[in-house]
Amino acid sequence: MRIAQVAPLAESVPPRLYGGTERVASWLTEELVRQGHRVTLFASGDSETSAELVACAPQGLRLAGIRDHTASHLAMLAKVRERQESFDIIHFHLDLLQHAMFSDLTHKCVTTLHGRLDLPDFLPVYEAFPRMPLISISDGQRKPMPSTANWLATVHHGLGPGLCPFDPRGGDYLAFLGRITPEKRPDRAIEIAKRAGMRLRVAAKVDAVDEEYFRSQIEPLLDHPLIEFIGEIDEAQKGPFLGGARALLFPIDWPEPFGLVMIEAMSAGTPVIAWRNGSVPEILGDGVSGIIVDSIAEAISACERSAAIDRFRVRAHFEQHFTAERMAGDYLVAFDRLLSSPQGYTKAAE
Amino acid sequence: MRIAQVAPLAESVPPRLYGGTERVASWLTEELVRQGHRVTLFASGDSETSAELVACAPQGLRLAGIRDHTASHLAMLAKVRERQESFDIIHFHLDLLQHAMFSDLTHKCVTTLHGRLDLPDFLPVYEAFPRMPLISISDGQRKPMPSTANWLATVHHGLGPGLCPFDPRGGDYLAFLGRITPEKRPDRAIEIAKRAGMRLRVAAKVDAVDEEYFRSQIEPLLDHPLIEFIGEIDEAQKGPFLGGARALLFPIDWPEPFGLVMIEAMSAGTPVIAWRNGSVPEILGDGVSGIIVDSIAEAISACERSAAIDRFRVRAHFEQHFTAERMAGDYLVAFDRLLSSPQGYTKAAE
Repeated sequence: MRIAQVAPLAESVPPRLYGGTERVASWLTEELVRQGHRVTLFASGDSETSAELVACAPQGLRLAGIRDHTASHLAMLAKVRERQESFDIIHFHLDLLQHAMFSDLTHKCVTTLHGRLDLPDFLPVYEAFPRMPLISISDGQRKPMPSTANWLATVHHGLGPGLCPFDPRGGDYLAFLGRITPEKRPDRAIEIAKRAGMRLRVAAKVDAVDEEYFRSQIEPLLDHPLIEFIGEIDEAQKGPFLGGARALLFPIDWPEPFGLVMIEAMSAGTPVIAWRNGSVPEILGDGVSGIIVDSIAEAISACERSAAIDRFRVRAHFEQHFTAERMAGDYLVAFDRLLSSPQGYTKAAE
Repeated sequence: MRIAQVAPLAESVPPRLYGGTERVASWLTEELVRQGHRVTLFASGDSETSAELVACAPQGLRLAGIRDHTASHLAMLAKVRERQESFDIIHFHLDLLQHAMFSDLTHKCVTTLHGRLDLPDFLPVYEAFPRMPLISISDGQRKPMPSTANWLATVHHGLGPGLCPFDPRGGDYLAFLGRITPEKRPDRAIEIAKRAGMRLRVAAKVDAVDEEYFRSQIEPLLDHPLIEFIGEIDEAQKGPFLGGARALLFPIDWPEPFGLVMIEAMSAGTPVIAWRNGSVPEILGDGVSGIIVDSIAEAISACERSAAIDRFRVRAHFEQHFTAERMAGDYLVAFDRLLSSPQGYTKAAE
């Protein structure tokens, strides 16, 4: 199949540092190429891919210091549009701008929505352009969207090969990995560890916007013999950090549409203790690859029970559900489904 | 002529409080209606106009708490697009989003760029869609744009009738009116007044983003018998505030594409002392409606000389160049010029 992958320009594909969407776009692109498809990747010029790369900005916009990304994305979409006849499928990883420019090509366009959809700001575009086929990254992500949204499929993310290798032994500490931000509830993680009497290692970056929250709410909690704050870690450190843990704590307080760190932990064989919120119940096999909780007390009890979870079963759950190969397969099924409606796919017609 | 006016949705038209673009769009719309044109205004639903209003959001987005305005603007543009056949001219007051969606209708579309154009963020869109006819609000505004930009005209803003009425007497103080922000250089205004030994009244709002600048750089300068900080004032207070002044200080430190406050002061008969920057030399008649300066020393001397400027001549300069009637006339000439090229206007072809 001739597939265009249209990635955000905020970061390179894959990103130098952070950038969940660009990481997933990279894993998907590489896997589709590996499976023999002819893939063209529209992304920043410092991207690295085995697909054909169409450079749509010299480098990722964020690290280039570009603050308003709209113009660069519109210019990229003009390039996609120019070459549209050479693609069977045009797959967007952007939220908004393509709906207007490709409203006459929805029979071969599809958009994966990567972000949260519970902000009213974005709704007008989905109401104004109801024919664009949409893919959610979890069923939970769909909840706030209007009933008219043209959902084609849910495709859970999958991890590229070689990342977060399986560690059959694990270790004795709890892990917290992510940004320090109120929604991720690092304070809950710290309370759980202290009350469970277990070590907690916190690997987290602090964005400028969260500086004040970190200083006033989190830093005072760190001065405790069980708590170790190790700051930001890179991709290479992630595997050992997650693989060496007894369990990952994911005590989120918001409907996270997909928590990549959960499948990274599972890849390493480390079970996840997560709050019942957003996509969590879809991603965790409760009792198999982790434990879903609703309170601090349940989380403390889960920490104790987590030692009994078989790390080989956690890894098997990951391999069955969260590899890039499975993700690419799901996308190909969705693409086929779309192409079998040459007049354009509409969920309402199904 | 059947004219669509497409205004930003950030504020109502006219705006409740701030919003330079929405104010100008309102003055232009009302004047075009007054001259007998059939005008359709695409704007937020709480706008007030004698044109036909197409409500594209329940109320201005900023006061409604919507932070990302992209989706709402795309939905508005879809409405414009739907009705495009009923217009001879579609006149956009947005910077970016319409270029992609109307790239096949540039023979009857025109965009007034209201903002600064010296940020690299926006350039990709003007390079990707080079056929959209553009109108600058000053010649100075054009400088940073690529030579390929399809300029149709420069149209200076004009003020709606009844605002900032002429005050033949003026008063004894210097006035500063605007936001407290480093680019507007309120510190310069204060230094000039102190060294000239004249009273300065500062009518200015402080945005959240400028709080720190205000507290650390400006507030310490206010404790002086010649300086009076009166905070934010509304539209009704603006006329008396400007009309009662000896001169307006406009000591800007950036290439402001058009300083509305300069023509508001001129409307009241008050001369303007302004730094040579951006659009200033186009707007001020040097020695007629104000004095253009390059240094603090020149500004101090200008304060003394400003008493000799004839307020009737300032007002006459305003009436000749900066009324909404003159602005609408210029726009109609530009529209005619566009429509005389049915294949689409290109500056290069002239």
